[in-house]
Amino acid sequence: MDFSFDSRTKALVSEMEDFMASHVLPAESVFDDQLAALDDRFAWTRTPVVGELQAEARRRGLWNLFLPVSADPDGVGAGLTNVQYAPLAEISGRSGNLAPAAMNCAAPDTGNMEVLHLFGTPEQKEQWLTPLLAGEIRSGFAMTEPAVASSDATNVETSIVRDGDHYVINGHKWWTTGAMNPDCAVFILMGKTDPEASRHRQQSMILVPRDTPGVEVVRPLEVFGYDDHEHGGHAEIRFTDVRVPVENLIGEEGAGFAIAQARLGPGRIHHCMRSIGMAERAVELMCTRASERVAFGRPLAQQGVVRDWIAQSRVEIEQLRLLVLKTAWLMDTVGTRGAHTEIQAIKIATPQVVQTIVDRAIQAHGAAGVSQDTPLAMMAAGIRTLRLADGPDEVHKNSLAKAELKRFSPAGR
Amino acid sequence: MDFSFDSRTKALVSEMEDFMASHVLPAESVFDDQLAALDDRFAWTRTPVVGELQAEARRRGLWNLFLPVSADPDGVGAGLTNVQYAPLAEISGRSGNLAPAAMNCAAPDTGNMEVLHLFGTPEQKEQWLTPLLAGEIRSGFAMTEPAVASSDATNVETSIVRDGDHYVINGHKWWTTGAMNPDCAVFILMGKTDPEASRHRQQSMILVPRDTPGVEVVRPLEVFGYDDHEHGGHAEIRFTDVRVPVENLIGEEGAGFAIAQARLGPGRIHHCMRSIGMAERAVELMCTRASERVAFGRPLAQQGVVRDWIAQSRVEIEQLRLLVLKTAWLMDTVGTRGAHTEIQAIKIATPQVVQTIVDRAIQAHGAAGVSQDTPLAMMAAGIRTLRLADGPDEVHKNSLAKAELKRFSPAGR
Amino acid sequence: MDFSFDSRTKALVSEMEDFMASHVLPAESVFDDQLAALDDRFAWTRTPVVGELQAEARRRGLWNLFLPVSADPDGVGAGLTNVQYAPLAEISGRSGNLAPAAMNCAAPDTGNMEVLHLFGTPEQKEQWLTPLLAGEIRSGFAMTEPAVASSDATNVETSIVRDGDHYVINGHKWWTTGAMNPDCAVFILMGKTDPEASRHRQQSMILVPRDTPGVEVVRPLEVFGYDDHEHGGHAEIRFTDVRVPVENLIGEEGAGFAIAQARLGPGRIHHCMRSIGMAERAVELMCTRASERVAFGRPLAQQGVVRDWIAQSRVEIEQLRLLVLKTAWLMDTVGTRGAHTEIQAIKIATPQVVQTIVDRAIQAHGAAGVSQDTPLAMMAAGIRTLRLADGPDEVHKNSLAKAELKRFSPAGR
Amino acid sequence: MDFSFDSRTKALVSEMEDFMASHVLPAESVFDDQLAALDDRFAWTRTPVVGELQAEARRRGLWNLFLPVSADPDGVGAGLTNVQYAPLAEISGRSGNLAPAAMNCAAPDTGNMEVLHLFGTPEQKEQWLTPLLAGEIRSGFAMTEPAVASSDATNVETSIVRDGDHYVINGHKWWTTGAMNPDCAVFILMGKTDPEASRHRQQSMILVPRDTPGVEVVRPLEVFGYDDHEHGGHAEIRFTDVRVPVENLIGEEGAGFAIAQARLGPGRIHHCMRSIGMAERAVELMCTRASERVAFGRPLAQQGVVRDWIAQSRVEIEQLRLLVLKTAWLMDTVGTRGAHTEIQAIKIATPQVVQTIVDRAIQAHGAAGVSQDTPLAMMAAGIRTLRLADGPDEVHKNSLAKAELKRFSPAGR
Repeated sequence: MDFSFDSRTKALVSEMEDFMASHVLPAESVFDDQLAALDDRFAWTRTPVVGELQAEARRRGLWNLFLPVSADPDGVGAGLTNVQYAPLAEISGRSGNLAPAAMNCAAPDTGNMEVLHLFGTPEQKEQWLTPLLAGEIRSGFAMTEPAVASSDATNVETSIVRDGDHYVINGHKWWTTGAMNPDCAVFILMGKTDPEASRHRQQSMILVPRDTPGVEVVRPLEVFGYDDHEHGGHAEIRFTDVRVPVENLIGEEGAGFAIAQARLGPGRIHHCMRSIGMAERAVELMCTRASERVAFGRPLAQQGVVRDWIAQSRVEIEQLRLLVLKTAWLMDTVGTRGAHTEIQAIKIATPQVVQTIVDRAIQAHGAAGVSQDTPLAMMAAGIRTLRLADGPDEVHKNSLAKAELKRFSPAGR
Repeated sequence: MDFSFDSRTKALVSEMEDFMASHVLPAESVFDDQLAALDDRFAWTRTPVVGELQAEARRRGLWNLFLPVSADPDGVGAGLTNVQYAPLAEISGRSGNLAPAAMNCAAPDTGNMEVLHLFGTPEQKEQWLTPLLAGEIRSGFAMTEPAVASSDATNVETSIVRDGDHYVINGHKWWTTGAMNPDCAVFILMGKTDPEASRHRQQSMILVPRDTPGVEVVRPLEVFGYDDHEHGGHAEIRFTDVRVPVENLIGEEGAGFAIAQARLGPGRIHHCMRSIGMAERAVELMCTRASERVAFGRPLAQQGVVRDWIAQSRVEIEQLRLLVLKTAWLMDTVGTRGAHTEIQAIKIATPQVVQTIVDRAIQAHGAAGVSQDTPLAMMAAGIRTLRLADGPDEVHKNSLAKAELKRFSPAGR
Repeated sequence: MDFSFDSRTKALVSEMEDFMASHVLPAESVFDDQLAALDDRFAWTRTPVVGELQAEARRRGLWNLFLPVSADPDGVGAGLTNVQYAPLAEISGRSGNLAPAAMNCAAPDTGNMEVLHLFGTPEQKEQWLTPLLAGEIRSGFAMTEPAVASSDATNVETSIVRDGDHYVINGHKWWTTGAMNPDCAVFILMGKTDPEASRHRQQSMILVPRDTPGVEVVRPLEVFGYDDHEHGGHAEIRFTDVRVPVENLIGEEGAGFAIAQARLGPGRIHHCMRSIGMAERAVELMCTRASERVAFGRPLAQQGVVRDWIAQSRVEIEQLRLLVLKTAWLMDTVGTRGAHTEIQAIKIATPQVVQTIVDRAIQAHGAAGVSQDTPLAMMAAGIRTLRLADGPDEVHKNSLAKAELKRFSPAGR
Repeated sequence: MDFSFDSRTKALVSEMEDFMASHVLPAESVFDDQLAALDDRFAWTRTPVVGELQAEARRRGLWNLFLPVSADPDGVGAGLTNVQYAPLAEISGRSGNLAPAAMNCAAPDTGNMEVLHLFGTPEQKEQWLTPLLAGEIRSGFAMTEPAVASSDATNVETSIVRDGDHYVINGHKWWTTGAMNPDCAVFILMGKTDPEASRHRQQSMILVPRDTPGVEVVRPLEVFGYDDHEHGGHAEIRFTDVRVPVENLIGEEGAGFAIAQARLGPGRIHHCMRSIGMAERAVELMCTRASERVAFGRPLAQQGVVRDWIAQSRVEIEQLRLLVLKTAWLMDTVGTRGAHTEIQAIKIATPQVVQTIVDRAIQAHGAAGVSQDTPLAMMAAGIRTLRLADGPDEVHKNSLAKAELKRFSPAGR
């Protein structure tokens, strides 16, 4: 047992911290101003500052770090393990709107790149993966549907029907993150090719270029008043008789559920890593505020309740980080499937812990904490959403409990 | 001991419920659309639907209900006690953006009207109270300052300096609710007239018309991602060498702290009453959703965790409502000062209980719960803010604990 | 709406507080010493101090207060409503081992007396109710069984079989409170007379004198290490071919479930009333300790976290008490059946709130808090048990949620 | 980073699990019976079963595992690191009354042995350490005093006064764990040798044989209703003019505080390791119960709330264990002092997490959960006490928060 990071990781952490301090954090307000000046506020890829940061990240070797070496025989990524990537992703989460984008490590592109990398044809890779890895285009993942509980992927109702050498797609999606950005060039869409097949073989994934006729981006969805334009928003999209060539199918017909499962593990752990960075920033802001703000004659830092919040937050973060790291280590050593329970565990634990920590930090800031003058309110909205994204807590708890019951009593199912 | 409402209250409740069902709730989306079509989205007073609702409320005798009979010797208000008003305010909280405004019972105007009513000169009343009671103008309350912990009103730093027959005001305020609305015609401002006086005699309140030179509305503050334009937003305002006639002073010099104390009690209980209505609506939405949404083969309503949330919410609301009602009854029978501890108690209890209930309702809705498709996310932002508005929870808890300690041990201070 | 107590209640409260201060509280340690000196520590009825306190309570008119006037046409009790009794029961809960016994208002005798009063034959009343009302004997309620989830009374498996002019009883009970006391003369036992009848008509209640052959008191059950001998413990009892005359049946065959329902409402609210008194005593102890104990140079009372506990506890108690009082008022005005939901609500709310408050008081006391040197640890054990006694929280929450769902959507069942 | 245990640890875990299943768990009820049959129920060392288990543990190489190799230059212990010991201590916590004693790894002897090992003279080691390591005698640690907040060790008031070649001790101690056992032969006592010295140099530690004149064991303290006789109880002890030779001093005069600090780190982490084992057993019991118990027609295991408890418990345990392991690793690599913050963190986190888990398991068991029929109620009492033992949570949180504030703002003290 060894809790230390290796030297490559330490060097990258050091590089990353320098990059954050010297470039990313100072760029936050610049980014906001440039966004506000755009005609289309969702087109964040068009702000000059993002391009500059991306160039700098590339120069420093902080580019495409997300692709785990174990899933990357071609060496397309940076060759990191999940454990090596974890502290880097965490640091990027301290500036969640900007740092992941600067490093080409932002959702949902990372998941989509991983899918294309693992399951795409050479042609699909050339057309979509290459420009994604270069940060030239953006992508969306069209999975969730308003009409059904999409946390159970088998509920998806969008139809993908073969018609000669095309597939015809009809369906209604929402929460397609990033898709309000006009530079989001392509969607990976999940639908049903065969409703008569067995439960986990009905679904397929298919590439749908955004400009295909019949694709209608209906509206942006909001999250607690935020449209999340900083990373392309969340779109409601209707697909009406959308025709794409059969070559656009990813993998084979019926492979959609399996691909989704493969995609979700890494996606979840990346979210968790970044969320820990968010929590760290919240604690830092809380400590700074507590030291500076005087109420009733003493700094908040000398008042017991605020100290209780700070201590409790630190203790919670340390535990959470270790669970995420262990999960990363399991993914590296026994694979995503072997880490199934742990991935569920971090999906359950992370949002609830971080939500509480951010809420404490807000409270320590008074009314400023809910306003646009700190990043805390936006953090609160984001982390709250993570308790729902990709299935509400309850779904994951239910599943994890079933596994636990099974361990202790074979009848307990 | 008698927990039943009198017949007048029951009749008004009935009238109010009919008004809500037939007019207010159907108007919610109309209001949103009309607001979106305005040049200035903060000018909510200019939407036709508000005028129509106000006419209807007046016709039904649901107008200016807030002014307690005990503080209204002239019979300007509707002549209700706080206990009689409580269920009506609660019902209005089910549609918190629209119903209070429709009934001319919205903050901060209610508090400002009460101040003018109790402490204003006949001229001040004619100029400002009469049009406020008629719903013709709106007002703001400029108290909180960014630089100091304003939960302790003695910290206020804005200066009010006598200069001949004028006062000259310099200061920096924020969270002046309603003040982004251009129809917000006047502010009641709290500042210091005599920094050398004893601690609670330094402050004064003064009327400042919005169009006075030197008044600069700097920007709207946001609450999570909301600008709360539906009720005029929250403004940051700079006052630079603002001159108003000495007649604008409310009460005498040094009376500001006492007036603030008198104003806060009713303001707090109104917020609590309406918050209970918010919680009731959240529970109703949660129940409806739970009955309709199917996941893993069964409606959520048949799944244990959601039932736990519903039961827990019901039990919490019932307790909270009774505490608010008892506080109203105390205000009616022994006055605001006599109900001091109970007012603190509801200020502590209400936001924390309702925040939890709204959060459960969000969780039951999945991602829809955080979006603009239900009122829940906006409720969550609003009720979270109430844990900070007018002093964070911790200030009130600290004060209440001191009183409690004193009861049991004279030394415990 | 009126939150004040009437003059009779106020007078009784005053009498009761005097009785507590002058007699009960000073007798607590005497009682413990006398108990320890007994041959059979469960025979608490044989301590001289209990007899003395009972005589004093009688003299002061504080005897048999529990029987609600609405259920007492014969005027056997003190003629109080539930609302009038509530503050008296609460005060008795401050010394829960001694005060209720002193006033002949202790469970399970109160519930048993109520059953006999409402459903007993004249002969049953003369034989058992009269000496119970006089405090001459004690009784037990044999309902819960180890083998089944007895929170659902229809699960009870003990058989009651008619054999000529006797019934023959076979079964296994536990948690028969008070039954370790050799002066516990009779049990009211719940069993099945007709397993073939409809679900709620299978059960009957029957009187079983403790000395009937076949009654075997197996052992005392413990609650967190306590044997609760102060009020007769909790017995596991086997009934093997126990024969009692048919005259011992209470009501008719098949009436058992209905009688149980009638018994539970008052029993639950009495527990809740007393639990509030327990919470009040915990807060008082916490405040006193916080004022006296110095740590790190300052009394605990000046440290933020302890103040937070005190304030939070006060706010919670006030809400809880009002819900209990409203429930009492409903029982007085619309009957136990009409107060069904509220009785569930207080059964859910009371133990969870009071458990938390007592736990805070323990924490404020350091290690003394878990020891025999304060009543807090015993309170914690007692209140924790109330989350299980008469059905775990979850059963009541589930039932209450079903009712709530039904209100908002007829399909939600 | 590597989360796997080495092969020696795996082999010992396997040995240990076999020992638990084949010997310890079956011996639990035997131990209880033998204890009950003793004249002095605190003399647990005299039960035959403990001797048999100890022999078996020795045979299997499961003896004195606690002494970390880093603090054991003489090779007196088993030569394990803290990380290697952690899973073994955890497993022993599943049967906390018996397994640690069987392995000679029970508190407070382990801490006392470590003190003697590190700071004792050769004579002290021969007289006391050798028989302790052999399991022939038991020892106590007399630190806590009723009159002062002993969580701050500098508050200790017991005096140790030099008088020729003796020290004379006067003081009043309590919570001297294990000391009710007549086989507890010696106490390590903390007192003040020089009240005028600097704050952390006033204290000394000294060996006091139990049979020294002036040592009066006053009474056993209870924890909830338990006297914890299974491991020797907790004694209140008066020391009146107790004379011991100067050779009994451990280390030099004034070294007491430093020795206490050195002793506490290992003691705390051992408690935490065992507590995790307790939590694991609670989860196992909860799962088994949930699978077996039927209520309302379905096993509890199929009811959502119980599943929520199970999942939440699993997620919490995993995080907690990793924090304890990381702390062990830090102690191994940078020493107890370097792991100071982490030791505080596990002291804060462990009891609160495990208390909640045990409480859930109790709730799942119904009334059986609070009784003597499961180990859960005793676990609940034990873990609750750990939130107070060696300083209440709040002391450790306060200290940890100070360190955290210092990280982010040098002024924040």
